[in-house]
Amino acid sequence: MKIKAAVAWKAGAPLSIEEVDLEGPKKGEVLIRVVATGVCHTDAFTLSGADPEGLFPVILGHEGGGIVEEVGEGVTTLKKGDHVIPLYTPECKECKFCLSGKTNLCVRIRATQGKGLMPDGTSRFSKDGKMIHHYMGCSTFAEYTVVPEIALAKVNPAAPLDKVCLLGCGVTTGIGAVLNTAKVEKGATVAVFGLGGIGLSVIQGAKMAGASRIIAIDINDAKWEMAQKFGATDFVNPKKHDKPIQQVIVEMTEWGVDYSFECVGNTQLMRAALECAHRGWGQSIVIGVAGAGQEISTRPFQLVTGRVWKGSAFGGVKGRTELPGYVEQYMSGEINIDDMVTFTMPLEDINKAFDYMHEGKSIRSVIKM
Amino acid sequence: MKIKAAVAWKAGAPLSIEEVDLEGPKKGEVLIRVVATGVCHTDAFTLSGADPEGLFPVILGHEGGGIVEEVGEGVTTLKKGDHVIPLYTPECKECKFCLSGKTNLCVRIRATQGKGLMPDGTSRFSKDGKMIHHYMGCSTFAEYTVVPEIALAKVNPAAPLDKVCLLGCGVTTGIGAVLNTAKVEKGATVAVFGLGGIGLSVIQGAKMAGASRIIAIDINDAKWEMAQKFGATDFVNPKKHDKPIQQVIVEMTEWGVDYSFECVGNTQLMRAALECAHRGWGQSIVIGVAGAGQEISTRPFQLVTGRVWKGSAFGGVKGRTELPGYVEQYMSGEINIDDMVTFTMPLEDINKAFDYMHEGKSIRSVIKM
Repeated sequence: MKIKAAVAWKAGAPLSIEEVDLEGPKKGEVLIRVVATGVCHTDAFTLSGADPEGLFPVILGHEGGGIVEEVGEGVTTLKKGDHVIPLYTPECKECKFCLSGKTNLCVRIRATQGKGLMPDGTSRFSKDGKMIHHYMGCSTFAEYTVVPEIALAKVNPAAPLDKVCLLGCGVTTGIGAVLNTAKVEKGATVAVFGLGGIGLSVIQGAKMAGASRIIAIDINDAKWEMAQKFGATDFVNPKKHDKPIQQVIVEMTEWGVDYSFECVGNTQLMRAALECAHRGWGQSIVIGVAGAGQEISTRPFQLVTGRVWKGSAFGGVKGRTELPGYVEQYMSGEINIDDMVTFTMPLEDINKAFDYMHEGKSIRSVIKM
Repeated sequence: MKIKAAVAWKAGAPLSIEEVDLEGPKKGEVLIRVVATGVCHTDAFTLSGADPEGLFPVILGHEGGGIVEEVGEGVTTLKKGDHVIPLYTPECKECKFCLSGKTNLCVRIRATQGKGLMPDGTSRFSKDGKMIHHYMGCSTFAEYTVVPEIALAKVNPAAPLDKVCLLGCGVTTGIGAVLNTAKVEKGATVAVFGLGGIGLSVIQGAKMAGASRIIAIDINDAKWEMAQKFGATDFVNPKKHDKPIQQVIVEMTEWGVDYSFECVGNTQLMRAALECAHRGWGQSIVIGVAGAGQEISTRPFQLVTGRVWKGSAFGGVKGRTELPGYVEQYMSGEINIDDMVTFTMPLEDINKAFDYMHEGKSIRSVIKM
């Protein structure tokens, strides 16, 4: 079928809105009509060319919401009309990782997904016979997309897809990192580095967990108002301090915070986040994605004196099992997504969404097809 | 009183056995007759001058066993004749850390201990009026020593002090890192980097925990026999492989080990240990003490894909609460210490103990006073 999509033909160039060919779903796959999609920093990261695993041409987008249009052979858990959120972290419920009870990092289709292909090793997207890659198994910057059944969470059809699409990445990643990865407990102290969509969601998660103090950290003072709305109790702008930021946080809290979260992808901040964690038990969670080849460092003494360094991908959330519950929490008002959506626009204007992001004007822009 | 002690007058020089002055115990302090003491790599590390916090002159030794000779004012939990193990990690049972239930890193006397002094800011040791520092709050390379009450574990008087003295550091550090810090579960896979006293104790702890596979790693093939005795199932000599050791371990185990332990103090090995941990949930525990200014590094992707980097000091063991139980486990045969003692010698020969250690001939030498 002919569909409209935003194609990234090469790194560093704007997306091009054009008609492309989409093949129907093969065995174990599902054709989705995309209703809405968020634009995330990870899309921009890949588009910039900084992502060492970026492949072109590609249809980006991985934070979508849609409706099942057609199911391929053997698909049993979804049918036409179901509302779904595509999952860049699938859940096969059968691999060693899914069965471990310890992680959400399903490996079932990892190899082909990393190559921008469906599980059978081919792409459904093309233009004039030239193959276009899938992206993170989702490719939601398109009117329609094909996604493996194991990479779709079926959600409450009453939920507005132009809001809950953000549960496909940012909101879930932030809240999940707090509740699943760190397991922040009532009364704990928290520091959040970077107040984009992920950081604000970490703040929201920390508030849900009952944290007593939530220190929001950003070099942009304008972020403070929104951080407060989501539950931050303190704001620190590292540019206003001569001391290293970790030292500022340790002095504010006597021994450091119980939990810290890096939501930027800056390896120096990852170090600062670890080093402002509480002696004896502080945990620091890396969420941000660093540039190619960059490394984190610290003195091992930081670990020997009780700090724990962890990371989180998609908030440790098993998408098919847990995401429907996140949608219900949004519906009941427990999770605030509406305040994250700063702009809504049609697919034709998607390059503006990237501009707003780079200019620091948006938390999230949502594309409505 | 006049006592005999092994004094380290300066970094890099042999210890000097001589008569020194020891003041009696002040408030909250206890005079101990040292019966036996192990010689640990940490003593050698400080003696070498590589320890940035090393102070001289000093009476080293922190792995001792002794008998209470006299108690100072206000001491209520110990009396003359009690058998004790000095604790370089004290347990006051009152500070934020002791009360947290999350760590053994009591801070009550940390500041003065770090300065080589008793809690009142003075030393009990001197020679011809010149002050000699305490070491790690223990200074067990002496016939008698003075230790704060909160830094003494009272143990079963039937236990041989020339064996259970090793519970004052190495054996407890290794076993505790497995049981308390990592919480290794039955059936787990484990990799142990470095087969000295700590590494062998990690192997022993992993066996106690029911690990299904224990991979022992050392560049000295001669260590394999002893590692096997303590429970290792596989031996890897990194010198016999062209590939990085982390890659060797990952290939041996498909995805890496559930838990890895660095027991050397080499920052490159700390990285290797992290990177051979299982994707999704593998934990790596830093036990070894690195040289001044050295740092650990890795790609943050290692953490984001589920590996956890931790450290352990004294095995996370709360000495006064838990060490008596370790002694009982030795008495009942559950903990093997006897095979760790490769040499026994009088204080006069203590420099030989350092020689044997540097030559790789000993696991532990025990000095009997």
